[in-house]
Amino acid sequence: MSRPVVVDSVAALRAQIRDWRRDGLRVAMVPTMGALHDGHISLVRIALEKADRCVVSIFVNPTQFAPTEDLDKYPRQLAHDLDRLKVAKADLAFTPTVGEMYPAGFATKISVGGPSAGLESDFRPTFFDGVATVVAKLFLQATPDCAIFGEKDYQQLCVVRQLCRDLDLPVEIIGAPTIRDAHGLAMSSRNAYLGEAELKIARQLNVILRDTAVALTAGADQGDATAEASRALVAAGFRKVDYVEARESLTLAPWRRDREGRVLAAAWLGKTRLIDNLDVRSN
Amino acid sequence: MSRPVVVDSVAALRAQIRDWRRDGLRVAMVPTMGALHDGHISLVRIALEKADRCVVSIFVNPTQFAPTEDLDKYPRQLAHDLDRLKVAKADLAFTPTVGEMYPAGFATKISVGGPSAGLESDFRPTFFDGVATVVAKLFLQATPDCAIFGEKDYQQLCVVRQLCRDLDLPVEIIGAPTIRDAHGLAMSSRNAYLGEAELKIARQLNVILRDTAVALTAGADQGDATAEASRALVAAGFRKVDYVEARESLTLAPWRRDREGRVLAAAWLGKTRLIDNLDVRSN
Repeated sequence: MSRPVVVDSVAALRAQIRDWRRDGLRVAMVPTMGALHDGHISLVRIALEKADRCVVSIFVNPTQFAPTEDLDKYPRQLAHDLDRLKVAKADLAFTPTVGEMYPAGFATKISVGGPSAGLESDFRPTFFDGVATVVAKLFLQATPDCAIFGEKDYQQLCVVRQLCRDLDLPVEIIGAPTIRDAHGLAMSSRNAYLGEAELKIARQLNVILRDTAVALTAGADQGDATAEASRALVAAGFRKVDYVEARESLTLAPWRRDREGRVLAAAWLGKTRLIDNLDVRSN
Repeated sequence: MSRPVVVDSVAALRAQIRDWRRDGLRVAMVPTMGALHDGHISLVRIALEKADRCVVSIFVNPTQFAPTEDLDKYPRQLAHDLDRLKVAKADLAFTPTVGEMYPAGFATKISVGGPSAGLESDFRPTFFDGVATVVAKLFLQATPDCAIFGEKDYQQLCVVRQLCRDLDLPVEIIGAPTIRDAHGLAMSSRNAYLGEAELKIARQLNVILRDTAVALTAGADQGDATAEASRALVAAGFRKVDYVEARESLTLAPWRRDREGRVLAAAWLGKTRLIDNLDVRSN
């Protein structure tokens, strides 16, 4: 059988997973919106270390985009994605239509509090409702034993953990390190929007975040360090900085120096919004 | 082993259900808030017809009560409930604490649209969020094949169906007929609040709803028939009528005469709020 098997209905997904379960196999899931890059492929690799079978969902979820956002132009390249999944030895690609995920009359929303507060939510107020709802659906459709999420979307990772804990979804959530290019730029499907000149600026985001993390670890004042980071981003050529903030790694509560921390940022290059984050050592 | 087995942790619940699954047994669930009466027992009977094992949850869910409502005085009588479940041959009683269901830091809410609009929601605006969230949790904890809900809480039954459909919760929802006393009064844990005089008035609710259903079936104007029902309820001694409305049986959209309908009402006797509903034949 050629891999990955591609299914676009929940019924076919469940039938395949039922067969695997019957054989006693452990199933891992990697939810994606497609436009797969090395970051996604690293998640597939981890999935196959943690389980016998890897399901990758490819679904550009409309409910996590605001009307003003890039839903229509978000890159869609299924043939390329399937090629990459074949090389990565993923077992199944689940490629539902919008109608399969949200049939006529669909009317339910999951809102996760806690780690969803602030950061992305200040700028994308309905984003995490969309993420939580679609992730819960995917988990209930595929019933994986574990699921892999990249630390690149760090707040999302925390929200998904909270979702599973709160709703008793029996899925182990595994966070995976951000994959970066040779210049440290975090892999993102949205990097495809960047021209050459923008790409050069984009590569300063991780450099400035690393400086900030080092300064915070060394004892710099949080307000000073993050304000300095914002200034540096603008000086580097970013059009606008949505936030640079230090938070507690586990809860995303405001960072206290004696806890593991994370410095997170979102900034704009032209019409492209980039995010990144790095850990801050407690001391 | 004495039945029902009583467990108060999710871990113990899951262990028992895992054992049953290993034996190939089908599991039905009856979610309740305790204070079990003949209505609940009828749900257990149906559960045991539909499945090999019946789990009854007993949990007075704080998130479905508004601060002004009767959470504190809601009847709690576990020993009596367990006696009734023993006679009814329920297999397992799940009696979690509030802390087991909502540990510190709990922060997730499920909102179901569609059938939740109007009726109860106009008077208990956060009620169905509380119901949907706790039912989803119970289903994810117990993973039943089916669950039985009484038609007494008709809008709740519709909301739970929508919840399962929208979130791909693989639980078959079975609606069960309302159980009534010799006077037609729908069984309800809240009937325990009623004194003798109030009980006599309460028994008019189903009589007036039946008159309304008959009038609607015979072709009466909806607005006239429901207004007449409200007047009759007040004349019978009800202190206040929250609503009397005709809705489509399946969707709870406004009733159209060519569809199966349901007439639903909520009214107050002193501090006690009663609800009931009956079907209206399409014609």
